[in-house]
Amino acid sequence: MPEAVTHRLVSAGLLPQSLSERLAASRRRSIDIARPLSPEDMTVQAMDDASPTKWHLAHTTWFYETFVLGPHMPGYRRFDDSFAYCFNSYYEGAGPRHPRTRRGLLTRPSSAAVMDYRAHVDASLATLLHDVPPDPTIHQLVELGINHEQQHQELMLTDILALLACNPLAPAYRELPEVVVDEPASTVQWLSHPGGIRSIGNDGEGFCWDNETPRHSVLLQPYRLADRLVTNAEWLEFIADGGYRNPLLWLSDGWATVKNEGWIAPLYWELRDDVWQQFTLAGLQPVPKSAPVSHISYFEADAFARWTGKRLPTEFEWEFAVAADGGDPPASDDVQIRPAPLEQVARSEKRRLHQAFGAVWQWTASAYLPYPGYRPPEGTIGEYNGKFMVSQHVLRGSSCVTPAGHARLTYRNFFYPAQRWQFTGVRLAADAGA
Amino acid sequence: MPEAVTHRLVSAGLLPQSLSERLAASRRRSIDIARPLSPEDMTVQAMDDASPTKWHLAHTTWFYETFVLGPHMPGYRRFDDSFAYCFNSYYEGAGPRHPRTRRGLLTRPSSAAVMDYRAHVDASLATLLHDVPPDPTIHQLVELGINHEQQHQELMLTDILALLACNPLAPAYRELPEVVVDEPASTVQWLSHPGGIRSIGNDGEGFCWDNETPRHSVLLQPYRLADRLVTNAEWLEFIADGGYRNPLLWLSDGWATVKNEGWIAPLYWELRDDVWQQFTLAGLQPVPKSAPVSHISYFEADAFARWTGKRLPTEFEWEFAVAADGGDPPASDDVQIRPAPLEQVARSEKRRLHQAFGAVWQWTASAYLPYPGYRPPEGTIGEYNGKFMVSQHVLRGSSCVTPAGHARLTYRNFFYPAQRWQFTGVRLAADAGA
Amino acid sequence: MPEAVTHRLVSAGLLPQSLSERLAASRRRSIDIARPLSPEDMTVQAMDDASPTKWHLAHTTWFYETFVLGPHMPGYRRFDDSFAYCFNSYYEGAGPRHPRTRRGLLTRPSSAAVMDYRAHVDASLATLLHDVPPDPTIHQLVELGINHEQQHQELMLTDILALLACNPLAPAYRELPEVVVDEPASTVQWLSHPGGIRSIGNDGEGFCWDNETPRHSVLLQPYRLADRLVTNAEWLEFIADGGYRNPLLWLSDGWATVKNEGWIAPLYWELRDDVWQQFTLAGLQPVPKSAPVSHISYFEADAFARWTGKRLPTEFEWEFAVAADGGDPPASDDVQIRPAPLEQVARSEKRRLHQAFGAVWQWTASAYLPYPGYRPPEGTIGEYNGKFMVSQHVLRGSSCVTPAGHARLTYRNFFYPAQRWQFTGVRLAADAGA
Amino acid sequence: MPEAVTHRLVSAGLLPQSLSERLAASRRRSIDIARPLSPEDMTVQAMDDASPTKWHLAHTTWFYETFVLGPHMPGYRRFDDSFAYCFNSYYEGAGPRHPRTRRGLLTRPSSAAVMDYRAHVDASLATLLHDVPPDPTIHQLVELGINHEQQHQELMLTDILALLACNPLAPAYRELPEVVVDEPASTVQWLSHPGGIRSIGNDGEGFCWDNETPRHSVLLQPYRLADRLVTNAEWLEFIADGGYRNPLLWLSDGWATVKNEGWIAPLYWELRDDVWQQFTLAGLQPVPKSAPVSHISYFEADAFARWTGKRLPTEFEWEFAVAADGGDPPASDDVQIRPAPLEQVARSEKRRLHQAFGAVWQWTASAYLPYPGYRPPEGTIGEYNGKFMVSQHVLRGSSCVTPAGHARLTYRNFFYPAQRWQFTGVRLAADAGA
Repeated sequence: MPEAVTHRLVSAGLLPQSLSERLAASRRRSIDIARPLSPEDMTVQAMDDASPTKWHLAHTTWFYETFVLGPHMPGYRRFDDSFAYCFNSYYEGAGPRHPRTRRGLLTRPSSAAVMDYRAHVDASLATLLHDVPPDPTIHQLVELGINHEQQHQELMLTDILALLACNPLAPAYRELPEVVVDEPASTVQWLSHPGGIRSIGNDGEGFCWDNETPRHSVLLQPYRLADRLVTNAEWLEFIADGGYRNPLLWLSDGWATVKNEGWIAPLYWELRDDVWQQFTLAGLQPVPKSAPVSHISYFEADAFARWTGKRLPTEFEWEFAVAADGGDPPASDDVQIRPAPLEQVARSEKRRLHQAFGAVWQWTASAYLPYPGYRPPEGTIGEYNGKFMVSQHVLRGSSCVTPAGHARLTYRNFFYPAQRWQFTGVRLAADAGA
Repeated sequence: MPEAVTHRLVSAGLLPQSLSERLAASRRRSIDIARPLSPEDMTVQAMDDASPTKWHLAHTTWFYETFVLGPHMPGYRRFDDSFAYCFNSYYEGAGPRHPRTRRGLLTRPSSAAVMDYRAHVDASLATLLHDVPPDPTIHQLVELGINHEQQHQELMLTDILALLACNPLAPAYRELPEVVVDEPASTVQWLSHPGGIRSIGNDGEGFCWDNETPRHSVLLQPYRLADRLVTNAEWLEFIADGGYRNPLLWLSDGWATVKNEGWIAPLYWELRDDVWQQFTLAGLQPVPKSAPVSHISYFEADAFARWTGKRLPTEFEWEFAVAADGGDPPASDDVQIRPAPLEQVARSEKRRLHQAFGAVWQWTASAYLPYPGYRPPEGTIGEYNGKFMVSQHVLRGSSCVTPAGHARLTYRNFFYPAQRWQFTGVRLAADAGA
Repeated sequence: MPEAVTHRLVSAGLLPQSLSERLAASRRRSIDIARPLSPEDMTVQAMDDASPTKWHLAHTTWFYETFVLGPHMPGYRRFDDSFAYCFNSYYEGAGPRHPRTRRGLLTRPSSAAVMDYRAHVDASLATLLHDVPPDPTIHQLVELGINHEQQHQELMLTDILALLACNPLAPAYRELPEVVVDEPASTVQWLSHPGGIRSIGNDGEGFCWDNETPRHSVLLQPYRLADRLVTNAEWLEFIADGGYRNPLLWLSDGWATVKNEGWIAPLYWELRDDVWQQFTLAGLQPVPKSAPVSHISYFEADAFARWTGKRLPTEFEWEFAVAADGGDPPASDDVQIRPAPLEQVARSEKRRLHQAFGAVWQWTASAYLPYPGYRPPEGTIGEYNGKFMVSQHVLRGSSCVTPAGHARLTYRNFFYPAQRWQFTGVRLAADAGA
Repeated sequence: MPEAVTHRLVSAGLLPQSLSERLAASRRRSIDIARPLSPEDMTVQAMDDASPTKWHLAHTTWFYETFVLGPHMPGYRRFDDSFAYCFNSYYEGAGPRHPRTRRGLLTRPSSAAVMDYRAHVDASLATLLHDVPPDPTIHQLVELGINHEQQHQELMLTDILALLACNPLAPAYRELPEVVVDEPASTVQWLSHPGGIRSIGNDGEGFCWDNETPRHSVLLQPYRLADRLVTNAEWLEFIADGGYRNPLLWLSDGWATVKNEGWIAPLYWELRDDVWQQFTLAGLQPVPKSAPVSHISYFEADAFARWTGKRLPTEFEWEFAVAADGGDPPASDDVQIRPAPLEQVARSEKRRLHQAFGAVWQWTASAYLPYPGYRPPEGTIGEYNGKFMVSQHVLRGSSCVTPAGHARLTYRNFFYPAQRWQFTGVRLAADAGA
């Protein structure tokens, strides 16, 4: 079959991509994300939470070298022994590593060397998948590697945004392709759910992270969920009503953060000539009123909900409602660089519950904790998720910069309650009677 | 009835104490706790988390003035207008206040002045309860005040311990009355529980905090719970096995804390001539092997559980198991200044599940979050619990320094995962099959 | 001779006090300073730079025990072995010690125990001086101890001020005895000095610190010195002219401090109803216009001088000018609790150069460095001055809280350029032609 | 005259270079320094004290734009208005600026854009110097610009060293061209100087900084000065003798720094297999025993001197001794990337006092303060030196990375006593009799 035809069939979902193809596509995509950047842009670290693009490109490569090629490809030769130290993120089992807060000091290896590293590992992976007899362990590890890299692809974009936002020249990563029609958002519809005992977590079909398992039952009270996300227009009302100045709306830790950090609006917002602008991957832009609010912390999401008299949903309420409304997201186009206004999305969605995926991650009231019976995988790979299960909150859905194919119904993202450099927003919930 | 007889009957639970009597007893008890201290001891703040005894004595008094006398006693005259600023803890609704971290700078008002303040408020409360027609609102607020002061009585003792522990003279707050028989602890018995849908939270009988409500159903998987707490002997094995040096046992944030703080043992432990000693309210003492380990953080509790191959119970598992085994603690003697060795306790307990109360607070796997349908009370008093519902973990039971009558089955204590100056320990749990 | 007569003769300067008498007087004076304080006041540490009164009382006693009684009194028994750890200030040669920033945690030993400690050491010193044959080494060490304690007497008062200033009740240490007549200060007279080669430093008569030696020659250019200190009235003009907002007036480190600390006026000043008040040892008081400005840093002194077009004098210019105008201060009454307005002082001074002593320490342009040929004494006592000779500036004169008899012409006080909790002010200088 | 001939004559000092030529050479030299670096290397900031190479390249260009072209070239068009914000270092008079600690976040403008910026300004400067009638003000400002850029050329190299030292790959900036013959250093010869009244400071011939003026007289006691610098061999003895573990050798602030920073050797030293290595611009190299110790702080220099029983010279002692021994350094070759061993240097020096220039800057006992009668220039350019005259110490001489032609007898370099990323070392002094 000619490649173009194959491609069209694969794209249309009529022909499944092979693992090799998906691997190659995923590896290419990281390079594509880095393409608009100079070597300088790729090297600098905006803040402790963020990593340089170059580091992401190398770390995702180190992951394959460490967990796939090293253990499973006979005769594999490491590209450079020093890279293990440079590009291990946090795996204690994989030896000592360069401190996270100093990743931006790694001007060497150069961006070019990292590209060579990628090519070396890509070639080895291709050989491994082609020559070695099919081995489920290897396939699972490669699948893991693809998903791992997809996570870093999202982080690359949020970290680039964080970097460019520090620059007094306010440079754009990419131009906005979209024509934004900023029509007022529709009134929220409240979707009712009866509660009861529901199954939550991954059912074992397809790839998932360990933290989505085991599938188990939870007991839900009847509740209602907003059919759409909170918009910037609504957030502007919150600001205008003194939301950032009223301690009674905030969790105690949240209020301390508001005061210490001087928060008066979401991250990247600034008031210029009395108009709120937001720094985006397309540079400084007027805040679009009907788009979902983004770059807010859990503290802000919680305070906003209290201001409305509503609350945040639990992750279980979210999952059940979305499961009932269609479940996993459809195969989708690739990322946008900022969340689209509601109407633009709503027109194309068949669902009642809009913006579950592809706009912003949605803070939930649920702390990030293991599911009953959770066991991390054996070995160093088991450090992936479990060791972060404290002091963070779960976010559900996906964002405008989540790679196509990465999101799913049972996905559990997690961040600390004060963090807001990701594309994070709010969907409101309420008790059945409230 | 002569007072001595009344007292005996009340003590025996045959005659309920009146609210006035309980109030007076509670107020006296705070003074009793402070009695071994000099004015200097009462004034100094050991660390940001702790408060001076004098401040506790004044703050619990301010609480009555602000929430009971001010609003409900006609013609009440504040003792000193400046005290509202000095002794408000964290109520944003009650106006500006002295910063928490600077409470130890308040050498004025003097301890003597604070005692006068207490006398003034006590007299007014007595008058209010005697003269004013019985008013459920007032009674509820006084009940709240008693429970509030009981909490601070526990904090007084933990904060005094923190202060004396800073002193190179290693002074004792009180001599140890107990003769400690440090017999080896019995082997752990694992109590099985079938799971299912269970009611959790307060049923409305007697006083409870808002955070124990509403009573609601949860779904539990079958599980097992240790019949006793983890002992110091077991903790010494953990230390000897390199527990504090193995990152793979720890949550990521926990390991960072271990390294930053240089933790190698529970708080107040120190190795002298190869023997572990622990600084206690009775001064520096050899660590009693059969007593429950105390002064450990959530991070340590979690790491220890992982080391054993077990886990921490959820707060629901804890509550259900204790409910099934007798529920609320019996009327008890007053506090000991350190947790008693197991055998000493077990001999007197009728229960299968030992040390649920009166030894150490037990870290649970549950994040401190609102129960479904939770609503804080209206008004400033509503700042009591709800605004702390993030980034903390629930502890259940009670400790050796919890005032008699304060603990109950549904009580939810909460601290940050790195905190360990309270009397905190571990009870292990496991899945039914594990 | 009857004691009363002796006393009168000694007071009149007709009969020199014996060393024992001066020692006893000096020891009593520390107790007198502490008298208005409660045990609480004596125990708390206002900030890292300051120490508790109780600590000063004990440390000055430890000094005699360590350097006089221990080495020189046969059979001397230490009062309490643990005190060496508690009350050593910074002598590396005298063993480990309690950290400076944690002095305020020492609620034990109690104030009463410290008084007993003082009595024990005082009695031993009396015995030593009475029984042991006169020994110049001992006499010199006692002389050193008296001067050491005098320094701490000044610090006690500045540290008490720092403590009470933290208290929202704004308590007074003592009432103001003075009737302040706040007449406008006279115009500055500029006293001219020809320069040339001048001898600087102590000539060996009477007690002095090692840092005042050796006496040596310096070469001075012709210069002029203001006959009085800068007044609060002049400082108010500086403020009104934007002195604290204009970076061009400041040293770079000074401007960084102004911004980081939010300085807008001298320490302890606050604007109430548009009137500047200053917190003093007599509580909050209106700023007296003709009194010398006090509680300013070197950075502020330097910026003010630049604003006037003048400069600070070097310590050599100061010493020579004062030497030429009368030298050492006269025997004087004891301390005032704040610097007196100029006119009050000027009326009683015979000198042309007013307020050289007894008002505020005067920042000089000279860094605190060793004189040519300087050698610290042998042994631990040698840690007294030399090891601080970096990054500080010399102040000359004395302040309103310097003990009578402590100041002298050649005295070199020293503090870091950002410190301002001492009674510190400015005298302006200028080049001959400027 | 053909260019080659001119060049040879100029090099030989027979034909003075024109200002234009010297400007062009100086501008080229900055580019040459950056040549071995990638754009990544040029962008990242190693630490707060250091700046990125790109920033240095742009800032030295901004200096000409701001102080020469803007005010003095009619019709000059700024290259990019935003650069003033990005590349102002600390001139308060030149408007707001990007914070020093965030210079490394400036991935834009790119290195290429900065090169264009340089070309634009270079062309304009060439035009200005060629077309505009000779104007002493302009010539002085260009001279200032050349010297300013020379200072930054030295900083570029020390900051590159700081950056590469952070890299686990330990990359070399350049290979070592030298063949190092590490012969034992000769015994120190002590050169005696009689003291007396001496003239210090610049006499107005040729360029100098404002802080070298006015020339004035100082009075010196007789003293002796070592004929060479302290060597690494001697420093190894200091280490072996416990120099970094003995508090009695250190200034109090120095000892605190030793403990806080964990210093056990000069900066960039590390012990590998029991051999001390030093990270240099040529990568990790064995410490050459006869080379002067480098990368030490004032605190270390002072402690070392105390250990030897000697002391540091004052800046006046240094200047007078060097003046007496030949004064200004000879026209020299360009920089080496590390200080040469003594014998290598001594063979070629005609002087008695070796290594005055071209090895390492020499810490002096003199605090960095204004000379009597010092006045900074009028205007923003006056912020160059004066505002740093507090809390720093003067260093004299020059280092192996000081540009040829930049050093001179009266030059006053200055750094804080804890700083050590510059090429800094020690020459000992002693009193005449000591």
